[in-house]
Amino acid sequence: MAAPLLLDLPALQAMVDRSPFNRFLGMKAESIDEDKLVLSIRWREDLISSPERQSTHGGVLAAMVDCCCDYVIAARVGRALPTVDLRVDYHRAATPGDLHVEARIVQLGSTLASAEARVHDLNGKLIASGKGVYLTAAQKS
Amino acid sequence: MAAPLLLDLPALQAMVDRSPFNRFLGMKAESIDEDKLVLSIRWREDLISSPERQSTHGGVLAAMVDCCCDYVIAARVGRALPTVDLRVDYHRAATPGDLHVEARIVQLGSTLASAEARVHDLNGKLIASGKGVYLTAAQKS
Amino acid sequence: MAAPLLLDLPALQAMVDRSPFNRFLGMKAESIDEDKLVLSIRWREDLISSPERQSTHGGVLAAMVDCCCDYVIAARVGRALPTVDLRVDYHRAATPGDLHVEARIVQLGSTLASAEARVHDLNGKLIASGKGVYLTAAQKS
Amino acid sequence: MAAPLLLDLPALQAMVDRSPFNRFLGMKAESIDEDKLVLSIRWREDLISSPERQSTHGGVLAAMVDCCCDYVIAARVGRALPTVDLRVDYHRAATPGDLHVEARIVQLGSTLASAEARVHDLNGKLIASGKGVYLTAAQKS
Repeated sequence: MAAPLLLDLPALQAMVDRSPFNRFLGMKAESIDEDKLVLSIRWREDLISSPERQSTHGGVLAAMVDCCCDYVIAARVGRALPTVDLRVDYHRAATPGDLHVEARIVQLGSTLASAEARVHDLNGKLIASGKGVYLTAAQKS
Repeated sequence: MAAPLLLDLPALQAMVDRSPFNRFLGMKAESIDEDKLVLSIRWREDLISSPERQSTHGGVLAAMVDCCCDYVIAARVGRALPTVDLRVDYHRAATPGDLHVEARIVQLGSTLASAEARVHDLNGKLIASGKGVYLTAAQKS
Repeated sequence: MAAPLLLDLPALQAMVDRSPFNRFLGMKAESIDEDKLVLSIRWREDLISSPERQSTHGGVLAAMVDCCCDYVIAARVGRALPTVDLRVDYHRAATPGDLHVEARIVQLGSTLASAEARVHDLNGKLIASGKGVYLTAAQKS
Repeated sequence: MAAPLLLDLPALQAMVDRSPFNRFLGMKAESIDEDKLVLSIRWREDLISSPERQSTHGGVLAAMVDCCCDYVIAARVGRALPTVDLRVDYHRAATPGDLHVEARIVQLGSTLASAEARVHDLNGKLIASGKGVYLTAAQKS
């Protein structure tokens, strides 16, 4: 994990904002340090799955895990990376309220990298957790 | 896979449409039969990830896999189910164009069920594939 | 999946047998064709997990899924490949009896490849299913 | 994670040893505390995959991840649990030498529980990591 940070918080927010879908989600880069990247999204009615539970859609949680894992690696590599695969465990339904996701690098290699992430609600309850594998090798154009 | 279909296509479309996030994605129930459920989404600029590649966001693909796996099971159980976990493999970047996802049941049990899904573009290219596990046991209220 | 078969059944059995652990498992290459590779293991008491259920250990099932996915790709690439990641779903406890695993390629690329596998018992019951991602890029020595 | 420990180290070693396959692997319960369970296996030639690399077989690493995740939950539940699904990321080939795996609970529920694990070699290098989901609900006999 000793790779130095190449991107600061404004650069990461700019990376987030390049994606129209991320902008729709309202994804915000909260903090970056040697250990982890934190992103957040604000609760909105058009992000929910069940109208009874008002819970944020599993696809939104998957996007949070994917983006946070990708960008915590990007902070060391200098660019966003293609996702190889993503796994998300859903631990409890999200109740109405903002969500935070934090990701840490598991391994950073010259071909592949992986990171793991946890999504918490404002009460600190674990909503989801996951892991992603990303391609760090230079891609053919 | 011998469980009879309890929900027809309009009932599944109604299930899809109960979720505001699904409606944002423009998810459409295309067909249901003994073998598989097919859903589609139309390409839209606000669903893309990279503005250069114009590729649909990985979180949208994850939502397609999750919903299609969930609802192909729901068609036999009569209600949408909580996702236990979801895994998505990204095979190639989606180019601009509508996407189809088809899901088949792998196992349908009284506590848990699983299904697998594949996302193709309009040219029949495999964009992503995945699998989800769902809780079929009655939940405590 | 149009890549031609470079390895026949005896060559795949030789690949299986190079691993002392595979030999301990008694893994046998049953058939290879354009569509799938089938491997088997015979039930043995030292492969079980629970002495009451006499069920084959989940680690043995994981090894079956990993090897079958790896070698169905190897049959097109000409060599065994490093596993990037492996996911196994356990559908029911294996009862005493031989097990078959069959694997099909999902995607074969120049950097990565993936395959999916299903493990059945002699009655055709689905015991486990899974998926693996493998590195096809030439590795640095 | 506040669930009290119901099983001590000798009880966990006895649980490990009930499985003939675990005994073949030579799995040893090293330590258990509020935070994590540590298991180890000694390097042996009949556990390797490639005779050139002398690396421990991916199926053995998967068994280590599965058992350690299962038993760290078992220590709070009082019995070993059926695996729902298992995911393993392989970070680098294991070189000859003993391996340690440590697992921590991610979530402990009344129907399902999940744990995550990391496998290190004697030099502290990360060889593999993974996650498992287990059924904590009482099973029908």
